[in-house]
Amino acid sequence: MRQSHLFSHTRREAPKDEASKNARILVRGGFIHKEMAGVYSFLPLGLRVISRINNIIREEMNAIGGEEILMSTLQSEEVWKKSGRWDDEAVSIWMKTKLKSGAEVGLGFTHEEPIVNMLKNHISSHKDLPVYVYQIQNKFRNETRAKSGLMRTREFLMKDLYSFSKDEDSHAKFYGKVKEAYFKVFNRVGLGGKTHLTYASGGSFSKYSHEFQTLTDAGEDHIHICTTCKTAVNEEIIHEHKICPECSGKDFKKEKAVEVGNIFNLGTRFSEALELFYRDDDGKEKAVVMGSYGIGPGRVMGTIAEIYSDLNSLVWPESVSPYAFHLIALSGKNSDITKEADKIYHKLTSSGVSVLFDDREISAGEKFADADLIGIPKRLVLGERSLSSGKLEYKNRVTGEEKNLSLEELLGEL
Amino acid sequence: MRQSHLFSHTRREAPKDEASKNARILVRGGFIHKEMAGVYSFLPLGLRVISRINNIIREEMNAIGGEEILMSTLQSEEVWKKSGRWDDEAVSIWMKTKLKSGAEVGLGFTHEEPIVNMLKNHISSHKDLPVYVYQIQNKFRNETRAKSGLMRTREFLMKDLYSFSKDEDSHAKFYGKVKEAYFKVFNRVGLGGKTHLTYASGGSFSKYSHEFQTLTDAGEDHIHICTTCKTAVNEEIIHEHKICPECSGKDFKKEKAVEVGNIFNLGTRFSEALELFYRDDDGKEKAVVMGSYGIGPGRVMGTIAEIYSDLNSLVWPESVSPYAFHLIALSGKNSDITKEADKIYHKLTSSGVSVLFDDREISAGEKFADADLIGIPKRLVLGERSLSSGKLEYKNRVTGEEKNLSLEELLGEL
Repeated sequence: MRQSHLFSHTRREAPKDEASKNARILVRGGFIHKEMAGVYSFLPLGLRVISRINNIIREEMNAIGGEEILMSTLQSEEVWKKSGRWDDEAVSIWMKTKLKSGAEVGLGFTHEEPIVNMLKNHISSHKDLPVYVYQIQNKFRNETRAKSGLMRTREFLMKDLYSFSKDEDSHAKFYGKVKEAYFKVFNRVGLGGKTHLTYASGGSFSKYSHEFQTLTDAGEDHIHICTTCKTAVNEEIIHEHKICPECSGKDFKKEKAVEVGNIFNLGTRFSEALELFYRDDDGKEKAVVMGSYGIGPGRVMGTIAEIYSDLNSLVWPESVSPYAFHLIALSGKNSDITKEADKIYHKLTSSGVSVLFDDREISAGEKFADADLIGIPKRLVLGERSLSSGKLEYKNRVTGEEKNLSLEELLGEL
Repeated sequence: MRQSHLFSHTRREAPKDEASKNARILVRGGFIHKEMAGVYSFLPLGLRVISRINNIIREEMNAIGGEEILMSTLQSEEVWKKSGRWDDEAVSIWMKTKLKSGAEVGLGFTHEEPIVNMLKNHISSHKDLPVYVYQIQNKFRNETRAKSGLMRTREFLMKDLYSFSKDEDSHAKFYGKVKEAYFKVFNRVGLGGKTHLTYASGGSFSKYSHEFQTLTDAGEDHIHICTTCKTAVNEEIIHEHKICPECSGKDFKKEKAVEVGNIFNLGTRFSEALELFYRDDDGKEKAVVMGSYGIGPGRVMGTIAEIYSDLNSLVWPESVSPYAFHLIALSGKNSDITKEADKIYHKLTSSGVSVLFDDREISAGEKFADADLIGIPKRLVLGERSLSSGKLEYKNRVTGEEKNLSLEELLGEL
């Protein structure tokens, strides 16, 4: 992508109404645009980041047998009444709207009810199980206060996976697999070392749920991390835990964190309410055992931005960077540099390498300031010096590694 | 994909509440699920089809300089009041909902207002123009009657492109490019020969708009096609046209059709209302000239299903088929066939070919009936006969071509 064609511009100052670090840096870099409190749109660079996060999640969900679908936002009263979650007294964060007929419909904040209802058409025998279904889709929550930029919004992307198993045993095995897959996701997007499996309240579904909590001062949660095994306990249930539920360790360290994922044992709560039964090989009719598993890609993006930024600079982990390289031509009045940079840009892109090419006619200072905000970790600079030596100045902003190398050497390394 | 793992099952009968051909065949094949009247979810096979349609659209939008973004569903009253399109009297198909604060927000049925508002941060000079921005995103319309399956729904995917040009001339050039790109899209998805550029009312924006109308009895529109140049005129404005507006031909043929795309000259209607001005090179402040361009991928999918199906059978155009090949193993009790089919499946998928592999232990008749509904155009059958001859039975359901060929020959052809 030629930066001269990119419509989004960086901003020197963050908007006054953005308090959170992630929103400030992401608005300034031209990744997101605030539509209203708690509602953001994604600009080209931001969409590239979120798409890469989505694809990492998708790969890990597919690897454990997940089948991708796409459900509707509009939700039917009839279906949700069956579980008792339609009324605003039961679920306070519903957004609802009216059809011309006068019928009320909801905007999905989760999808247990409609997915169970849909699977009644596809599950009838033990031979149809297990089923693992997921989607990456918009959710709506009528939050009283939206804050923290991308980390608590009224409209947000969610990857929600639902599992349907014949009994507790096979459910527990898959639940374990999802835990592993989630760690892979968080490792791959750059939140590995800072993300802790955290015991939390199971709500009305089961004794515990598991959260994935990433350490950051911007988080709204407090977790107590076992100093031995690094498993954590959410403050909300720490009074129940004198010892670590994983390793029986006794020392905890309290930290602030943000919940980037969660997994729930749902048991037969929804399958019984909506009558999702199957005929087992013993001839008996049984309720399907369920789990649900969420990751918020937007919140993940916000968390990465919190952790990998300072006041005027952001460095994306390579795996989610909008482009693999930022090629910066310091042309000044030297048209040979422009020509050479152009050649390098074409060579890289035609080799399948994604490149943001700063071909704009502005000062070197402005280019570097923008590049710092845009956050591509690998930078290639072509200026007077590199032109005469025939070498590009390569810099890896994560490792700090700097070297001069020719285009051929670079392509050889890729 | 192993069909034994695919959770969606085909159905012998269409649901009683589905009247339209496209919904009946798509529900039966396990592509879509009806959530309520006018609201559908996409199952794995359906999501694969819609993703392929989306990617074709994306490629053609990128090819003319489109930059992809993703805007929010929730819409702010403040922004829409500026154009006069907030009130239900002005726009009858709004769906609206209330935030906890009591503020009303809308669910986007289009995105002119928010995109103009957003671009005020990025366009200030003639050097910032042109800008071409698009998204593939959910839209909501409070239709009085939802009918025709995927062809008129209350919630639907839309590709909406918006162009921002400095003057009428450069706008007109881009408008022409979009026309060409749209024909490429409709050709590529298999609607080429049947889709006509159609003059229609420009509404409040301009004298005419252009629609892309695909011939089908399931359509809600009537168009009058010029027998000379194949350009059409929508019935709603045919009284204004004694002669073809494109070639001055005088003979028209009336046909039923569905609108699969539309393009509008918006002039400065929205840029003036929302104050999107730029400083031109003559130093003067001017309003940006806009166009908007829509394609409904779900409606395109429904239209393809209408055209390429009969009562019990569907044949997707290759370009949008959920898989490139349907591999059908007629194993019966012959485990050698199962083993050989497995080998072929692995060889094809590891060569990057997408394959739906019917590995289920059911009768040949059931397999073929399902394959007819699922609609993959290229079929590979492995049975007793093919096993002994070392050749697969290949059938192209579009051309009718049938031949026997070895796996090596098949891979050689790909």
